Amino acid sequence: MTHSGWHFLQIPGPTNVPDRVLRAMARPTIDHRGPEFAALTLDLIPALQRVFNTKDPVVIYPGSGSAAIEAAYVNTLSPGDRIVVFETGAFSLHWKNIAEKLGLRVDYVPGNWRRGASDSELESRLNADASHEIKAVVVVHNETSTGVASRLPDLRKAMDRARHPAMLFVDAVSSLASMPYRHDEWAVDVTVCGSQKGLMVPPGLAFCAVSQKARAAGKDAKLPRAYFDWNDIITQNAKGFFPYTPATNLFYALREALQMLEEEGMDNVIRRHARHGDAARAAVRAWGLELVCEDPREYSNSMTAVFMPEGHNADNLRALILQHFNMSLGIGLAKLSGKVFRIGHLGHFNDLMLAGTLCGVEMGLRVAGVPHKEGGVLAAMNSLAQVAEPAQAR
Amino acid sequence: MTHSGWHFLQIPGPTNVPDRVLRAMARPTIDHRGPEFAALTLDLIPALQRVFNTKDPVVIYPGSGSAAIEAAYVNTLSPGDRIVVFETGAFSLHWKNIAEKLGLRVDYVPGNWRRGASDSELESRLNADASHEIKAVVVVHNETSTGVASRLPDLRKAMDRARHPAMLFVDAVSSLASMPYRHDEWAVDVTVCGSQKGLMVPPGLAFCAVSQKARAAGKDAKLPRAYFDWNDIITQNAKGFFPYTPATNLFYALREALQMLEEEGMDNVIRRHARHGDAARAAVRAWGLELVCEDPREYSNSMTAVFMPEGHNADNLRALILQHFNMSLGIGLAKLSGKVFRIGHLGHFNDLMLAGTLCGVEMGLRVAGVPHKEGGVLAAMNSLAQVAEPAQAR
Amino acid sequence: MTHSGWHFLQIPGPTNVPDRVLRAMARPTIDHRGPEFAALTLDLIPALQRVFNTKDPVVIYPGSGSAAIEAAYVNTLSPGDRIVVFETGAFSLHWKNIAEKLGLRVDYVPGNWRRGASDSELESRLNADASHEIKAVVVVHNETSTGVASRLPDLRKAMDRARHPAMLFVDAVSSLASMPYRHDEWAVDVTVCGSQKGLMVPPGLAFCAVSQKARAAGKDAKLPRAYFDWNDIITQNAKGFFPYTPATNLFYALREALQMLEEEGMDNVIRRHARHGDAARAAVRAWGLELVCEDPREYSNSMTAVFMPEGHNADNLRALILQHFNMSLGIGLAKLSGKVFRIGHLGHFNDLMLAGTLCGVEMGLRVAGVPHKEGGVLAAMNSLAQVAEPAQAR
Amino acid sequence: MTHSGWHFLQIPGPTNVPDRVLRAMARPTIDHRGPEFAALTLDLIPALQRVFNTKDPVVIYPGSGSAAIEAAYVNTLSPGDRIVVFETGAFSLHWKNIAEKLGLRVDYVPGNWRRGASDSELESRLNADASHEIKAVVVVHNETSTGVASRLPDLRKAMDRARHPAMLFVDAVSSLASMPYRHDEWAVDVTVCGSQKGLMVPPGLAFCAVSQKARAAGKDAKLPRAYFDWNDIITQNAKGFFPYTPATNLFYALREALQMLEEEGMDNVIRRHARHGDAARAAVRAWGLELVCEDPREYSNSMTAVFMPEGHNADNLRALILQHFNMSLGIGLAKLSGKVFRIGHLGHFNDLMLAGTLCGVEMGLRVAGVPHKEGGVLAAMNSLAQVAEPAQAR
Repeated sequence: MTHSGWHFLQIPGPTNVPDRVLRAMARPTIDHRGPEFAALTLDLIPALQRVFNTKDPVVIYPGSGSAAIEAAYVNTLSPGDRIVVFETGAFSLHWKNIAEKLGLRVDYVPGNWRRGASDSELESRLNADASHEIKAVVVVHNETSTGVASRLPDLRKAMDRARHPAMLFVDAVSSLASMPYRHDEWAVDVTVCGSQKGLMVPPGLAFCAVSQKARAAGKDAKLPRAYFDWNDIITQNAKGFFPYTPATNLFYALREALQMLEEEGMDNVIRRHARHGDAARAAVRAWGLELVCEDPREYSNSMTAVFMPEGHNADNLRALILQHFNMSLGIGLAKLSGKVFRIGHLGHFNDLMLAGTLCGVEMGLRVAGVPHKEGGVLAAMNSLAQVAEPAQAR
Repeated sequence: MTHSGWHFLQIPGPTNVPDRVLRAMARPTIDHRGPEFAALTLDLIPALQRVFNTKDPVVIYPGSGSAAIEAAYVNTLSPGDRIVVFETGAFSLHWKNIAEKLGLRVDYVPGNWRRGASDSELESRLNADASHEIKAVVVVHNETSTGVASRLPDLRKAMDRARHPAMLFVDAVSSLASMPYRHDEWAVDVTVCGSQKGLMVPPGLAFCAVSQKARAAGKDAKLPRAYFDWNDIITQNAKGFFPYTPATNLFYALREALQMLEEEGMDNVIRRHARHGDAARAAVRAWGLELVCEDPREYSNSMTAVFMPEGHNADNLRALILQHFNMSLGIGLAKLSGKVFRIGHLGHFNDLMLAGTLCGVEMGLRVAGVPHKEGGVLAAMNSLAQVAEPAQAR
Repeated sequence: MTHSGWHFLQIPGPTNVPDRVLRAMARPTIDHRGPEFAALTLDLIPALQRVFNTKDPVVIYPGSGSAAIEAAYVNTLSPGDRIVVFETGAFSLHWKNIAEKLGLRVDYVPGNWRRGASDSELESRLNADASHEIKAVVVVHNETSTGVASRLPDLRKAMDRARHPAMLFVDAVSSLASMPYRHDEWAVDVTVCGSQKGLMVPPGLAFCAVSQKARAAGKDAKLPRAYFDWNDIITQNAKGFFPYTPATNLFYALREALQMLEEEGMDNVIRRHARHGDAARAAVRAWGLELVCEDPREYSNSMTAVFMPEGHNADNLRALILQHFNMSLGIGLAKLSGKVFRIGHLGHFNDLMLAGTLCGVEMGLRVAGVPHKEGGVLAAMNSLAQVAEPAQAR
Repeated sequence: MTHSGWHFLQIPGPTNVPDRVLRAMARPTIDHRGPEFAALTLDLIPALQRVFNTKDPVVIYPGSGSAAIEAAYVNTLSPGDRIVVFETGAFSLHWKNIAEKLGLRVDYVPGNWRRGASDSELESRLNADASHEIKAVVVVHNETSTGVASRLPDLRKAMDRARHPAMLFVDAVSSLASMPYRHDEWAVDVTVCGSQKGLMVPPGLAFCAVSQKARAAGKDAKLPRAYFDWNDIITQNAKGFFPYTPATNLFYALREALQMLEEEGMDNVIRRHARHGDAARAAVRAWGLELVCEDPREYSNSMTAVFMPEGHNADNLRALILQHFNMSLGIGLAKLSGKVFRIGHLGHFNDLMLAGTLCGVEMGLRVAGVPHKEGGVLAAMNSLAQVAEPAQAR
């Protein structure tokens, strides 16, 4: 198929990579053991720490987000260890599955895929675990399959109240650099992320921000590990190097993307995503469609998942929108397959891209004959124009 | 200023250059006297001829569109020669000014900048010129300052009826590759174009398609010429070379862009621009604003010029839209300065880019407090969705 | 530091990435669950199979070469399984270390780092293992730390003669696409490779070509695995997809690089590397320096490791060459640290790049005051010019 | 034809464009009437002035170097004006031909194409012109067809001694940013240059640095001019704009290239070219071949022209080198056709690129059976290694 114009990549990641980042990535590869590479690493890591809001080391893996999940487990736990994973959607299921493949025991706290992790549930489970069998709690911050963002500060408080020593593992893959994230303040032990969402980099890098407590847990952890062992990486990073060949060109991309985030200012980045989340939800409401997320306190600002009206298949709509309007929307995952479509509005994005995106959905609904009310785009414009923001002076 | 997301470059050229074209342009420069370069030229020229719908040579200059205007004159005329230029807007004025700087005498046929060249006026002027003093007639096909497209087939017929030997020079800078253009069928003698509009290439190349009659006129033409002399270029082009160093990397860009036009299919390209012209005008009407173009037969499909309501300055609106919405619109040129803004919708473009563009205008009008009715975007979506077109199978 | 001109990246990988590949990589990222992505995968895998000379599946991991080593182990073996690893240099040590971290028992066959794996030694060890405790034999095809290439056909024959069921794992990281490699013909069970050497792609992708026997072994393999589990990948690859987000832009790079290999013709690629290996060794001999590789049957054609004269440190020479001549050479690894420098001459390379490389070494030896004879470059030119090869007609 | 590895573009321009410059050029095109474009222009022009060593305006044309030659003439002279052009080679002839096409009268001072312009000859001609009929003197600084650099300081002194008011026009196309150039100190009236040589940018931009005297001469100049009229350009440049669409993406390239020159430091750039000129000539002498340039005071440091031995055709050698060694050398121009080949060693270049280049010539001579002595490369290495320079600290 041939399309004119920009492709609107409105899945909730990989996101639209800025052309600056793509060009930065196209620099010739350099010696990963030379001084220029060391300088690159020594630039990157503090810049990443600023994004994670942490003083802890941030470990970079050549790999997808799943690599960082596995790294979180194998560096801290032993076969048979018990962990709590909150069921929030398809990515919580992914964490559960990986844990089980590695031989961990998972308490999977049931959920309806429309709400975030419950702080009261967490508190009562921890309180019930007097023997401290639970070694770690896993929360997907922004559940990419549903557009529900768990309230991490509340969850942290619940853990504190329970005075339970379990580690807290957070999946920030689709929240980092688009919604507020505070690794240190929330005392997260391992924050897991990937390069391809708010960080505006193509897929291929995975990250773990690692607390002192997580590193200490590694001393007794018995899960076998080699590739994912973060000790050697952290040690070699001090001088700017890695124990095996890093993905040099993705590092270039990351450096440029982090530079862009700093130019815009992280507060502005967060505020931009908030405006876009509001506008997207205004459109959905005006169309008369139903959001997956039930609780306004848990709305995601990086993406919006929408139920199709009964009797209409989301994948047909998505295919038609791709074919007619050159836009990719996210599929419904796992049990939401066919029932939900997802609109990504994170990363390198602005008001007119969102406007074009929502026009594409509105026209798509119409061309596909999906029952809806006109006026979603108008509602979004009303939302956006009220709080239109001028460009940031550098 | 720092903006997130794509910049919407919605001036009527330079247009949004496809990333494919930008990457093609970034190939290393090669020897302009070697076999690889010759093959490049020998590919390019026939592909250009297909776009101009001509079998005549198409001459490529390193230069802006103005270079091609000057080339048209100096290769065919002598000092003091009389030509007719139709006043259609700022670009017709540009043709007049260049002609006068070069020592030509210009009959500037007055116009109101809202209509195209008049075929009846042309016919009567030619009929009145029994001694055939008039050597050339200049028509700007799509007047980029107004969004008015002169009806070339009617003008051609008028010249034929008058049986007058004047040459016909056409400025197709903002029409080629977005509106139908037929150099041979319309018996145009010199068609002038630039790289940066429908051809989707950055600025820096200028083109003249040159009829046999124009080449023959050159034998007696006394205007001095060196850089613009097309004879030597046409001769050396036969083997793939140029008399002086060509702009190699822009050639790469052009080859890729022509390839993209062929993949989409020129008929589809034309139809796409027609759909977008319709939708843009539907939006303007729904806003209650006034189009510059008066005659529906002369609507441009590559851009739309819009009058501001009395008492509102177009440049304020444009500055605000740039600042808040990261979109550039075209300024009002010459006597339309401040009174008109122009929306480019040509080149590498699609429905959602247009939708985003029109949302930017609608929100801009609102933020700027310019009186208008809501509903422009909705009207445009109605127009587009009625005739939504799936991607072309390759 | 600022240098003019090209950087000569003459480490034995990452290698100089072709500008075509870098530009291909800079294409915008696409939906990894859409039809365009599926087509990309379905193009890539057969093209990879042609390079590995196999009909077996080739699994692509987002990761470094080390990821593929770990994948080979965890997909086929159980804790406590015994394997044989031939000590050939630092990369054989890397295989051993990873195996031990994962809980395997390693028979590390001692070597002097100047010779390849011994077929007679292999045969006797297998014959001695009547109970078939040995589950796998690991051979580093081209030992990147030494420039010694083990003779795989002979090793295969030894295994066949011993009629031992052990699997054969081969590290082809620095041999694939530069030296002959035949996964099927040599009945290799897992061939491990990375993107950043002969394949001319930046680092970040790892590959395993996987025999039927290796897949079958997986059924009883007890090492925990999630990220590296190749079953799900192979299954989903059939339709062009992956179980987790693939490194899309590196896929673009890989597609372009494989296309370049096919344009040149794999036989020509192999012959080019052979010419360059000969010429590089001719230079070393003429300088009066000593090759690490002792046996001419085991010369590597992708790189050359050279001993420094007694009392001279290789890292000083390397640093000086980087500073004065803008060239990176490979360090001596592990026990060869400081004693050896390595010249990469694989990947996107040609006669004049090799000539410039060797001039850099010769001038570096001189500037650094390292005792040597002049004439290395001259010897290399003699070697190259004898068998100069014209460009391949496409 | 398909080649592996870098193409060595060793013609004396276009030169090897740095990958940084190519990527900078691939940025999306912007509005040439917006604030970002103005900032670009206002950055570029002072940076250009620093390279020309002038406080005079530097005018940028979208065009080849020939455009700037024509601009020099039409902005300052009238039909029938008399000028002096020194015959130094093919480019002096080009200046003469353009002048004559435009209706100027040319005193072409004969030369043997092996020496630069004679200061004594200039002085006597000016002294003989008591009536000051001569309006301008044209000198090609570095004659790209011969590798002879005229001694501008001596020529300037001759003009000063003669107290003649003629303007001085200098072609610095292949000297600027590789050999010392001082527009103000030498009181040059128009310095003409192009983007594609020492400035390391692809072809497509032409430059005129214009003295007050040259601008004043324009008031009475009667040659018709429109495209090349520099008055309007200089006026609009004050605010960062241009009277017609500038070649935006080449501006990006130029900005990056000027940035690179500043990072290296212009003195270092000049010294680098001097080292390379010395080394290239050492190689030619060692081969026993003859330089075109007769006078060591006039050696070019940006390129070297070499006579073929009697009975051997330079174009055969060049074709063979292109085919076998993926290197383009410069052809013999005009009367030197077939007799001379030219080695470009300017722009983005370093010791190992020069070494590779000279190896390519030496191997080419050998494969082509051209009589020569071995040892050119060795002589060049001796020359380079003596004065090897470390990278510049930024």
